[in-house]
Amino acid sequence: MTETRKKTRKTVVVALGGNAILQPGQVGTFEEQLFNIDGAMRRIAALVENGWRVVLTHGNGPQVGNLLIQNALAAKTVAPMPMDVCGAESQGQIGYMLEQALQNHLRMRRLPVPVVTVLTQVAVSAKDKAFESPSKPVGPFYSQAEAKKMMLEEGLAMREDAGRGWRRVVPSPEPVEIVPIEAIVDMIRDGICVVCSGGGGIPVVRGKGGALSGVDAVIDKDLAAALLAKEVAADALLILTDVPQAYINYNTPEQKALGTVDLTEMQAYVAAGHFKAGSMGPKVAACMTFVQAGGTAVIASLTEVVQAMAGEAGTRIVPEAAAGKKSKRAAGRVAKKSSGKTHVKKADSRKAPTEKAATKKAVRPGATVIDISEARRRASGGRA
Amino acid sequence: MTETRKKTRKTVVVALGGNAILQPGQVGTFEEQLFNIDGAMRRIAALVENGWRVVLTHGNGPQVGNLLIQNALAAKTVAPMPMDVCGAESQGQIGYMLEQALQNHLRMRRLPVPVVTVLTQVAVSAKDKAFESPSKPVGPFYSQAEAKKMMLEEGLAMREDAGRGWRRVVPSPEPVEIVPIEAIVDMIRDGICVVCSGGGGIPVVRGKGGALSGVDAVIDKDLAAALLAKEVAADALLILTDVPQAYINYNTPEQKALGTVDLTEMQAYVAAGHFKAGSMGPKVAACMTFVQAGGTAVIASLTEVVQAMAGEAGTRIVPEAAAGKKSKRAAGRVAKKSSGKTHVKKADSRKAPTEKAATKKAVRPGATVIDISEARRRASGGRA
Repeated sequence: MTETRKKTRKTVVVALGGNAILQPGQVGTFEEQLFNIDGAMRRIAALVENGWRVVLTHGNGPQVGNLLIQNALAAKTVAPMPMDVCGAESQGQIGYMLEQALQNHLRMRRLPVPVVTVLTQVAVSAKDKAFESPSKPVGPFYSQAEAKKMMLEEGLAMREDAGRGWRRVVPSPEPVEIVPIEAIVDMIRDGICVVCSGGGGIPVVRGKGGALSGVDAVIDKDLAAALLAKEVAADALLILTDVPQAYINYNTPEQKALGTVDLTEMQAYVAAGHFKAGSMGPKVAACMTFVQAGGTAVIASLTEVVQAMAGEAGTRIVPEAAAGKKSKRAAGRVAKKSSGKTHVKKADSRKAPTEKAATKKAVRPGATVIDISEARRRASGGRA
Repeated sequence: MTETRKKTRKTVVVALGGNAILQPGQVGTFEEQLFNIDGAMRRIAALVENGWRVVLTHGNGPQVGNLLIQNALAAKTVAPMPMDVCGAESQGQIGYMLEQALQNHLRMRRLPVPVVTVLTQVAVSAKDKAFESPSKPVGPFYSQAEAKKMMLEEGLAMREDAGRGWRRVVPSPEPVEIVPIEAIVDMIRDGICVVCSGGGGIPVVRGKGGALSGVDAVIDKDLAAALLAKEVAADALLILTDVPQAYINYNTPEQKALGTVDLTEMQAYVAAGHFKAGSMGPKVAACMTFVQAGGTAVIASLTEVVQAMAGEAGTRIVPEAAAGKKSKRAAGRVAKKSSGKTHVKKADSRKAPTEKAATKKAVRPGATVIDISEARRRASGGRA
């Protein structure tokens, strides 16, 4: 039984959008974020109950944006921190809120799965072409005069943003290395639900002799999630967003939602320009790098986590040979990867959570753990 | 040989003061912090080279103070976060800088020891007496009028602070549980240098059914370090500060530096009021809880890390029986502690770093890894 369970337990890397935590139009109070997170973690707990090993990663767009604004507005009193440090702060902020909410939901379901947040540096190549053309807008809006001054005096790249003012733009290089990957792999094997690689990771480059140093950049969180999923040899990558599926001919009379699609078909849709650069494009691209490595990738709504992993919702991208069926991963990738490294792998002997709900498909109702009135009281006190 | 090494390798929990990272009088720029951290991590790397397994924890006073000021100054634009969330942000900020600097110094010394930062919630008792009398000043200074308004409208505790203005005061309850302790213990056994419990931990309480929620409080980082050292069954606790030793009759003609002192002697000094509440008092108290559990505790200057652990500097507090000698810890505490838990312990089979320097006592010179001019450039760009 234990043996069977070990072999049948699958790992999914779940990527949660920063907008899922702080939605457009919301002020971004602690209580709003906690409420959004609580709902999301209730669904992730259901996934764990259904037998999945979950590795959780998340965006940080709205949160790091707020940190950058705080840094700018307080700049005369408190020395502002560079972008990599703000990214690290956002991993602390979001990781804490996610891990606590998930711990509480798992505890309610009597699932003895520890949740641990690992601060994650993600290395990019210093030679990445993205450094030549910064394109990702970050932080507060400035007037043209302020922007010109910043460009001249601080050498920053600034760009006018859709009539709303000027913003700093930074490079968005490709992730090449998840620095603490060995520890993450070990923790997953130990049965720990790891929260990591938040905001796409703290962007760093390796210099002379491999020394790490931070860079002002933003790594796409879905691309980092795909790399993470490959490195931990996950069975599936689940990218959660605010639409139920990916579409072709989006917003036209011919709009069609995509169910299960194989790699070749998806590549044709990409080539035909069906997915927008700013929204579905990077998600599809991230999925495809993971599927090319043999995994299954799913794009689904935050509200349909369990259904999506049961094959009943979302868009599922599968390798060529397996279209329409459940995909099978090549075994032993992790073992191969780690050979020769100092990290000694141990047997996967941690007790798996009860899989009584392995075939259950509906989300269990599950009460909200957070007392929002208490959260409100505390948030207002956060001022000092 | 491997067997011997395993048995002789000892674990030390090193507690670094927040002031060691951001010194009084400094503006607190990224480059200042990085410079301070770089020097500290060079010494910690030497400790690792000398054969110690290091668990690193740190204060966050100046850093969380700055975050609270940023939150207050930007409050009209960005919703301020409560104290626990700011604490989590400071763990991200400081943990990132510490881990990166330490990774670089270990790499320079060709020591294959991974460094991983674990976000750490630390639970306190909701019934802790400290909640009845908030005493720890945090965040920005306010005018009397502002303070009265905050007390009335937000129900905050505020206090006049030494003629400098009014500040919020929060409780400083005792740490009772390091939430991710199992994962930390496993990582230490895997040979990972863990950075954790920053700022004394993110303060949380356990409510109904064990559910975690944050509280506005500050946990003394040295007390949390002592709890951490007990829980991981460390051989030693090293508290680094800005003076070389603890003193009796401090700042009097009879001032005397303490070398090796046993628990009974130290208790007598404490009872005689030799250690000030705001500075050396909590450090001595933290050391004594650890020594009572059988360990050796050392208080030393940040600049004498290696010498202190070699018994050549600092104040060393040892259990009664072992005064003047090296103390011996009871074996098997970790194994006992973890029995019955879901976390399966594995054999300590990770390759230990070379202990060629086990008897070497001087700090190896070791160049500074950080290019400060580059750091300066980046820090100024941190504004947007």
